[in-house]
Amino acid sequence: MPRHAYVNGRYLPHGQAAVHIEDRGYQFADGVYEVVPVYKGILVDEGPHLDRLERSLGELRIPMPMSRAALKLVSHELMRRNDLSHGFLYMQVTRGVAPRDHKFPERAQPALVMTTRQTKPHSEKMLSEGLKVITVADIRWQRCDIKSTSLLPNVLAKQQAAEAGAYEAWQVDAEGRITEGSSTNAWIVTAEGKVVTRDASHAILNGITRLALIELIRKAGYGFEERAFTIDEAKAAREAFLTSSTSFALPVTRIDDTPVGNGHPGILFAKLRAHYMDYMAGLEETT
Amino acid sequence: MPRHAYVNGRYLPHGQAAVHIEDRGYQFADGVYEVVPVYKGILVDEGPHLDRLERSLGELRIPMPMSRAALKLVSHELMRRNDLSHGFLYMQVTRGVAPRDHKFPERAQPALVMTTRQTKPHSEKMLSEGLKVITVADIRWQRCDIKSTSLLPNVLAKQQAAEAGAYEAWQVDAEGRITEGSSTNAWIVTAEGKVVTRDASHAILNGITRLALIELIRKAGYGFEERAFTIDEAKAAREAFLTSSTSFALPVTRIDDTPVGNGHPGILFAKLRAHYMDYMAGLEETT
Repeated sequence: MPRHAYVNGRYLPHGQAAVHIEDRGYQFADGVYEVVPVYKGILVDEGPHLDRLERSLGELRIPMPMSRAALKLVSHELMRRNDLSHGFLYMQVTRGVAPRDHKFPERAQPALVMTTRQTKPHSEKMLSEGLKVITVADIRWQRCDIKSTSLLPNVLAKQQAAEAGAYEAWQVDAEGRITEGSSTNAWIVTAEGKVVTRDASHAILNGITRLALIELIRKAGYGFEERAFTIDEAKAAREAFLTSSTSFALPVTRIDDTPVGNGHPGILFAKLRAHYMDYMAGLEETT
Repeated sequence: MPRHAYVNGRYLPHGQAAVHIEDRGYQFADGVYEVVPVYKGILVDEGPHLDRLERSLGELRIPMPMSRAALKLVSHELMRRNDLSHGFLYMQVTRGVAPRDHKFPERAQPALVMTTRQTKPHSEKMLSEGLKVITVADIRWQRCDIKSTSLLPNVLAKQQAAEAGAYEAWQVDAEGRITEGSSTNAWIVTAEGKVVTRDASHAILNGITRLALIELIRKAGYGFEERAFTIDEAKAAREAFLTSSTSFALPVTRIDDTPVGNGHPGILFAKLRAHYMDYMAGLEETT
């Protein structure tokens, strides 16, 4: 069975899935997206992902392409057709097709594309050895809270990381404080054992995994601070890690050329990851 | 005869011109574009536009999709098919189609799309009454010198202008200095009669019309300064105007709620526009 994609009302074989060249997503990056993890056949945090999709669209004044209930139906039908058990669902909504002109078109139907991808669990090596991140200047626009497809600076940062043999690039603002990775949120554990991640603002994307983990940290009673931290503080941290919808939580053991803590994945990180995996395992189909 | 578009090797009826949903232009804004004016059937400043295309691609390390000579052949063939006499040629190059992953794909062919549009000359009203611009915060990324399709902030700025009854939004940096419009360069004429436009840097797109006009200003011997200017200086200017490949040069007679000079298009502007129109009229087919 070929993999299918959903494109503006139709389920198409992936290779034939296309959008018009004047879709504003293509010409202006005038759209938003969500990546929803699928774990044991269940969409993880589907509700919060749809909440964020609605928020991103609202900030750009793009109408929802269909009702939330319909979006769920399409998601589940695509997962069913693609026999998806572990991986993720990608959904993208743009302002639609219109003759090229910067300002919003008077008549345009929002475009909706969905794809799925089956992935393998993270390698044991990543978890046992940890990952390297590099630091790069954050050159993005000032509305990173909107999950837009305007991702070119993120692409350049991620490529820079890959060429440095790193998994991710932590972006640094004009004050020397880390904002976030190019596709992940950044976390440290201080010498005092407090978990720290940057507060949600226009400077970062408020990750759904970030939010879920904050909730788990609070429930478990660990020390926690939501605030910006500098590169120096990160390099001097006891532990470091990153989160995202596709990586869940992964340990960071090197920042640029500095080992984090003792150079091995942290103990508190391991507990937090276990909490998160338990959380996902306990999720049930909610639709 | 239906209008055609060129898409990755084929001339297609415009309505059927499509790209794959995993074209990185659609998912990451990982591409660049050019808009080349067509005046009396001639591509204006084709060479400088292709130079800039190559530069933008080089900065992003996207290979040229074909040789310069081939790009010219395709441009001219598309213009011929579409019987284009006055308007513009749009060309977009992206990093191509690949499974979604931020970093550069190992194997991807750059994608090339070209369209044309026939337009009418600017209305006499625009030229006789001048245009209003508003000022907005420049929230774009820090590499605006690359003509990328990462244009969402430009879209939002242009829409804000349209809703304020203005033609354009002049974007303002953190120091209160105007960078450029959402799709045009910004110019003023000082009380002393000097023409001023912001110097080319990572903060602005170095317009081809901007460059051509600078050359004409220098040849004609007008006073000229290439430097940043503030909102206050712009509002106190004797004249103001904007340039772009599609607008050529248009007078600005109101900035926010402040009339510029005597509220009418400037005398020096009229001379500069005449110089530019003479320049275009004198162009000959160079391929």
